[in-house]
Amino acid sequence: MLLSNLFLPLTKDLPTDAKIKSHQLMLRTGMIKQSAAGIYSWLPLGFKIMKKIESIVREEQNKIGAQEMLMPTIQSADIWKESGRYNDYGEEMLRIKDRQGREMLYGPTNEELITEIFRSSIKSYKSLPQLLYHIQWKFRDEIRPRFGIMRCREFYMKDAYSFDIDDEKAKHSYNKMFYAYLKTFNRLELQAIPMAADTGPIGGDLSHEFIILAETGESNIFTDKNIFDIKLNSYNFSKDSLEKMRSDFSSFYSATDEKFNKDEFEKKIKKENQIKAKGIEVGHIFYFGEKYSKPLNCLVDHPEGKKVAVKMGSYGIGVSRLIGAIIEAKFIDDVMKWPRSVSPFDLVIIPSINKNNDENSKKALKIYQELKENKIDVLLDDVNENISAKFKKHDLLGIPYQIIIGSKSEDDKFEFKEVGKIATMLSLKEIKQKLKK
Amino acid sequence: MLLSNLFLPLTKDLPTDAKIKSHQLMLRTGMIKQSAAGIYSWLPLGFKIMKKIESIVREEQNKIGAQEMLMPTIQSADIWKESGRYNDYGEEMLRIKDRQGREMLYGPTNEELITEIFRSSIKSYKSLPQLLYHIQWKFRDEIRPRFGIMRCREFYMKDAYSFDIDDEKAKHSYNKMFYAYLKTFNRLELQAIPMAADTGPIGGDLSHEFIILAETGESNIFTDKNIFDIKLNSYNFSKDSLEKMRSDFSSFYSATDEKFNKDEFEKKIKKENQIKAKGIEVGHIFYFGEKYSKPLNCLVDHPEGKKVAVKMGSYGIGVSRLIGAIIEAKFIDDVMKWPRSVSPFDLVIIPSINKNNDENSKKALKIYQELKENKIDVLLDDVNENISAKFKKHDLLGIPYQIIIGSKSEDDKFEFKEVGKIATMLSLKEIKQKLKK
Repeated sequence: MLLSNLFLPLTKDLPTDAKIKSHQLMLRTGMIKQSAAGIYSWLPLGFKIMKKIESIVREEQNKIGAQEMLMPTIQSADIWKESGRYNDYGEEMLRIKDRQGREMLYGPTNEELITEIFRSSIKSYKSLPQLLYHIQWKFRDEIRPRFGIMRCREFYMKDAYSFDIDDEKAKHSYNKMFYAYLKTFNRLELQAIPMAADTGPIGGDLSHEFIILAETGESNIFTDKNIFDIKLNSYNFSKDSLEKMRSDFSSFYSATDEKFNKDEFEKKIKKENQIKAKGIEVGHIFYFGEKYSKPLNCLVDHPEGKKVAVKMGSYGIGVSRLIGAIIEAKFIDDVMKWPRSVSPFDLVIIPSINKNNDENSKKALKIYQELKENKIDVLLDDVNENISAKFKKHDLLGIPYQIIIGSKSEDDKFEFKEVGKIATMLSLKEIKQKLKK
Repeated sequence: MLLSNLFLPLTKDLPTDAKIKSHQLMLRTGMIKQSAAGIYSWLPLGFKIMKKIESIVREEQNKIGAQEMLMPTIQSADIWKESGRYNDYGEEMLRIKDRQGREMLYGPTNEELITEIFRSSIKSYKSLPQLLYHIQWKFRDEIRPRFGIMRCREFYMKDAYSFDIDDEKAKHSYNKMFYAYLKTFNRLELQAIPMAADTGPIGGDLSHEFIILAETGESNIFTDKNIFDIKLNSYNFSKDSLEKMRSDFSSFYSATDEKFNKDEFEKKIKKENQIKAKGIEVGHIFYFGEKYSKPLNCLVDHPEGKKVAVKMGSYGIGVSRLIGAIIEAKFIDDVMKWPRSVSPFDLVIIPSINKNNDENSKKALKIYQELKENKIDVLLDDVNENISAKFKKHDLLGIPYQIIIGSKSEDDKFEFKEVGKIATMLSLKEIKQKLKK
């Protein structure tokens, strides 16, 4: 794509409430635009990154056999009254009356609705286990939306729900999702730590948060650096192997402020392995058994003949939030570098444009076309501005690879730079090979 | 995928209000489930079809250079007050008060919001033309939602917006979109007729509806059968060629009840070419110039120095509605056949399962695995029920190709059937070739 065609409203004027890196960067690079308090539009650059993250989340859900579906944003209040959460949820729930005066709401989460779908569809243990998920907009009417898309009101979330006949099988579903989450964050080049967590308004007795390290994180985390050496690939999908995986992670001390115990931390971890850092929550999983299936009367036939309430868990990843989390983790000293898997473009070509000589522009256009033919998603910065301004701009845009076309370019070698590394002179063939990896 | 794993709640009990074919079929095959009046969940089968339609819509938008973005579902009432539509829109607009008492609404369309984004981003004719689109949930609080997802309240829509410096250029944008729409419907194997239309609450003076032929359509249409002989591929993207395309379509008489003029119809079309049929609207495009840019003060610098209101158009396709439209057009005599481009699976394997002999099941599993390795998205009906019940079920599911494994199967030849055609005996290699086409 030609940069001059991209709808990319760059801005230098930041609102005073843009206090954290991700909020600032997303506004400066025209990824988002606020349309109301805590409500944003996603402009083409931000949208493209979000779609790539969404695809990775989806692929990892599909790999563990979860099936995608889609529940609506607007729900009837009735099922929330059945579960008892209609009154409990508080003012964060956006309550709506339709033209007929019916009580509706904008779903902040979907335990009730999925339970209602399940109870009218599945009657027997023979159809279990089931893992269903959707990726849909949610709304939580935060009293003070802030930090851009990190704590906004309308946000994009993947939520999955598991249905099993007994606790043991339900924990296997939980472990599969635990695995899928770690795989997802790995592919986003995020170091995520699973931490035993409180269950809050979702309920239940088993729960983990997934926290990534980021200097500007909202919570303090305390853990053992050996936790990062656990190799996900060493586990398979058998029940025992996944159980071992979860227990291996649990064997290392890790806690956020809430659960932090200084004595335990000091005692369990050698000084040199202690990590005290800041973190951001990017996922949260819950096993809550019959908490919703019982009040909603979601029963299935048990092999032994009786009917039992199905055992459920729920599993959330904030897809829109992950964009902010990646920025918080990767935007360092005013230079952004997107993980390749979610970068808005594979490569940017930055020609130094000279009014009296269009040689660089021509050369840039030629290799742009050749790379495009090789299915490389390339951005050509054809904007007429001086090269140092361009470099500053691309420091923010964060495309991980650059070809710089200026005085150093030779006939068949180009200055190729990976953000954060030293530039080298490479032929187009070598560049293509590098990008194919 | 194994059918026994698919979350597919088939049902025979239809609610009395399921009066049209698409509504009935979608409920019977577990594609959707109603969660409130006019609000549906999309279960895995329906979801998969919708995603394929969405991809085709997206690809054709991208091909004409439209850029994807995403606006939120919840909007502030303020911009609707600026345009004057907050009062005009009536009760179909779902109005909401948030916890702070601010007036919000669930967007029924996005002219105001996109204009607001544009006016704060683009200042000069040099950045024009722009074509922006998004695919997002909309809400219209219909007084009597009916016909399943054909006239529901929460629906999925692609809406695009064009921005140009003058009328002439704006009409070129309009023609590009006109072309993209016809291309989109072609790929869905729908015969769509563009018809000059009234502009209704969107406004403006140039507008076309795209209507597909379907027996159960809600409007009567009158046209000339020669209109179907226009070859889209004979036009290119130049201004003149696209202008000619639109005028070629306009040269044939076509009208819905509203605009129907019997005398003109009889006079303009030879008897043998007259088509009187039922139709369903699947798309609607509008050119309305300054209708929103003027009240919202969306100005750009003109080459001649002054500031002018940008010229805008808007372009809608009901993505969720298209699924219903395809069913209405293709579901004939209780047999459904999905267009290949949107079919939930490429092929279904239907073994006749015998309790005392698992030969068919084994054979089915073997070719299932081989086809999967060849990246063919195949469904294996491993459910234990008699073969005639299976055939009836697959008549409804509508996967266009079947391999039937029963008494007729030979060692290396299989009964291969395209829905609506005679079965033939083919080797797996021949089947693969057929599906690759």
